[in-house]
Amino acid sequence: MAGTPTIFHGSFVHSTKEKDMVTHNDMVIGVERGKIIFIEHETRLPDLMSEYSVPRDKVRHLEKWQFLMPGLVDTHIHAPQYAFAGSKMDLQLYDWLSTYTFPTEAKFKDLKYAMDVYSKVVDRTLKNGTTTACYFATLHRDATNLLFQIIEKAGQRAYVGKVNMDCCSPTYYKETMEESLEDTKKFVESTVSKKNPLVTPIITPRFTGSCSEELIMSLGRLNQQYQLPVQTHELETRADVGTGGLNHLHIWDKAGLLKHNTVLAHCVYISEEELDLLKLRGSGIAHCPNSNITLRSGFLDVRHVLEKGCKIGLGTDVSGGYSCSMLDALRSASQVSKTIAIQREERGENYEILTYKELFRLATLGGSEVMGLDETIGNFQVGKDFDGIVVDPLVENSPFDVFSTDTFSDIIQKFLFLGDDRNMIDVFVAGTRTSGR
Amino acid sequence: MAGTPTIFHGSFVHSTKEKDMVTHNDMVIGVERGKIIFIEHETRLPDLMSEYSVPRDKVRHLEKWQFLMPGLVDTHIHAPQYAFAGSKMDLQLYDWLSTYTFPTEAKFKDLKYAMDVYSKVVDRTLKNGTTTACYFATLHRDATNLLFQIIEKAGQRAYVGKVNMDCCSPTYYKETMEESLEDTKKFVESTVSKKNPLVTPIITPRFTGSCSEELIMSLGRLNQQYQLPVQTHELETRADVGTGGLNHLHIWDKAGLLKHNTVLAHCVYISEEELDLLKLRGSGIAHCPNSNITLRSGFLDVRHVLEKGCKIGLGTDVSGGYSCSMLDALRSASQVSKTIAIQREERGENYEILTYKELFRLATLGGSEVMGLDETIGNFQVGKDFDGIVVDPLVENSPFDVFSTDTFSDIIQKFLFLGDDRNMIDVFVAGTRTSGR
Repeated sequence: MAGTPTIFHGSFVHSTKEKDMVTHNDMVIGVERGKIIFIEHETRLPDLMSEYSVPRDKVRHLEKWQFLMPGLVDTHIHAPQYAFAGSKMDLQLYDWLSTYTFPTEAKFKDLKYAMDVYSKVVDRTLKNGTTTACYFATLHRDATNLLFQIIEKAGQRAYVGKVNMDCCSPTYYKETMEESLEDTKKFVESTVSKKNPLVTPIITPRFTGSCSEELIMSLGRLNQQYQLPVQTHELETRADVGTGGLNHLHIWDKAGLLKHNTVLAHCVYISEEELDLLKLRGSGIAHCPNSNITLRSGFLDVRHVLEKGCKIGLGTDVSGGYSCSMLDALRSASQVSKTIAIQREERGENYEILTYKELFRLATLGGSEVMGLDETIGNFQVGKDFDGIVVDPLVENSPFDVFSTDTFSDIIQKFLFLGDDRNMIDVFVAGTRTSGR
Repeated sequence: MAGTPTIFHGSFVHSTKEKDMVTHNDMVIGVERGKIIFIEHETRLPDLMSEYSVPRDKVRHLEKWQFLMPGLVDTHIHAPQYAFAGSKMDLQLYDWLSTYTFPTEAKFKDLKYAMDVYSKVVDRTLKNGTTTACYFATLHRDATNLLFQIIEKAGQRAYVGKVNMDCCSPTYYKETMEESLEDTKKFVESTVSKKNPLVTPIITPRFTGSCSEELIMSLGRLNQQYQLPVQTHELETRADVGTGGLNHLHIWDKAGLLKHNTVLAHCVYISEEELDLLKLRGSGIAHCPNSNITLRSGFLDVRHVLEKGCKIGLGTDVSGGYSCSMLDALRSASQVSKTIAIQREERGENYEILTYKELFRLATLGGSEVMGLDETIGNFQVGKDFDGIVVDPLVENSPFDVFSTDTFSDIIQKFLFLGDDRNMIDVFVAGTRTSGR
């Protein structure tokens, strides 16, 4: 989408810093070289077309009930685990890791296998409107490089991490501290040098128990050099709750790895003190509700995290979570919030459930904040990149029905709770159409 | 599908009285006049074709990974509420009824509106593999007759109930005891006389609080005459729990309305004594997990119901539940079971979660038992009607991916947790194709 700007004309829905959901009808959004150059009322359309020399065929008039929304941001997804997403859901985290997950990840030394799975997960998530994803790969540098390339080619925005785990790993899937560090350095150097504006390497120690302190500290030093984003798992299960001393959040902090673009997956059992530290550092939480139920880990109190003023977004956590669709993550987050409400009511307490507008914000702007990308994406604002989805509630073969009694608000809700990739007729990343009908 | 038998050749998956899931490859199923006339190993195919004079074009060879499964049985769905399914999910049951539901149902005196909504819900559920549905309509006899006709025309198997509620109703949506009884009689007479083998009227008192005792007893007498199935809501919220005396299950029993084909929706707060009574009478529970979370009603302990030996199936409860897809009901039932497991683990207790095989059984054979239809449908057995779905995991535009490492069991799980109507390429009710690609 070089040169001539494109103009989108119609309804759009997004979040702002102040409001969870803002809807506009009759607007025009101008996009040039991937960036939003204006957002104006439709009455200005003729002037804008002439001012920016936009020919008629570069103006996209959205149809009745179609709307534009920001791309979905998946703050936590394991690309290799997509191979078995939707199956193998009988076990809890640590048994599930050793029985299904590590054996699957170990297969990614085979680049042919990696190519198959990675191509499919990137296609599938883009098709489902995930314009930005925060990926864990595996221990393998070659396969992680391949994932990076596949994402570049598909045009998705992403962080891609070679996983570090030099502790407590099975014999068939492990690395030494030296190998871990060396491969990470090489992966980072080779990918950073590409200067791809959309795809970035991310420092990815799996979780505290899977990394030696020496490795964590070394990754901290590596990060000082490259200033990369960071991701890990934290406080996912009750068993992960602190055993005292310097553990969990504090160890990342000691290594300098708690930053404005550090993504902490789960944090189901995070303490008040740890939330305070998160807030202080500007790090964010990837809430993965489907995974937290499917693996029977627990229920994160998102309302409390929001009240504390911490950054939080949603993650599919494929395949602890069985679906790679961010719409599923949004629905699951709603059900977890209501589950907490039921529990509180049993104790005679009130609990404010997440509204659909808050859920929408978590899936878009909230995710961009967690990834430290909210200056670039997350909503429609002049100067930001244009990552957006054209939603068509009336598309042929749509999974839900619209009635004459439905308001725009009803239709947005129906899409969020009953819609799927069929309704996402165009998916744009930095102004380029990547997927759609 | 008259005259000549049809033969399906390939894999099939179903439940039996003894096993939650049985999978067969290389089988043939013969269907004649809507009924299953044989199930044999494929080696017998040539003999069977000659024995039953089946021409080659009447043999349907399923492709690799395609399989046949029994049609899904939705034991609880409110057809009129489909109008707003997927929206208006902020309130709990009684506020939700008065704010959204009763005003919507009141609109069904308008037959044009009823035609629109009822046509769409029947189409949509059939498309999603619901071959049998247990419908609540509204108070209106005319609109309920219309629903009956629409279902007949579409070829779905169903129970259809004109709702009774002569108590505690809003002024704009109520009926007297006399009107309620009279309209029910007329509805029953006019529909029973059609002798449709697939669609049957069902006695439908909304819930105890919405019906006078006089009405309930009168419906009991009406039922003695016609021997119809019965449905109502029971013990859905904590507020519904017995206030002592003759209430809830006992009042239905006193009226003779607790029978082998009585469907009790929800029963989240059912007591041991009430479960015993249910079992004694052979009545069943429609478990509606999406609704129970969405309306914040609570968590039904399905494991306990199964251990007690009571009949139980799944219901979408559109639109207390936001999705009319039985696959969603299955997934939600899984998440509710895991939610209970998390709660028990917090108390240091073990809890046996529902397996995907048990969930599959609930959605098919279990539902047929609850509706008292397990002599006719629910699985593949010689003499039963052929209600089945041809599932194609590899269909173009499938919502999930299959990998070379997937076993048949993995693929079944992927379909159950990630599949949708796109994978249901043929939906048969009593041998007739009603829907599909």
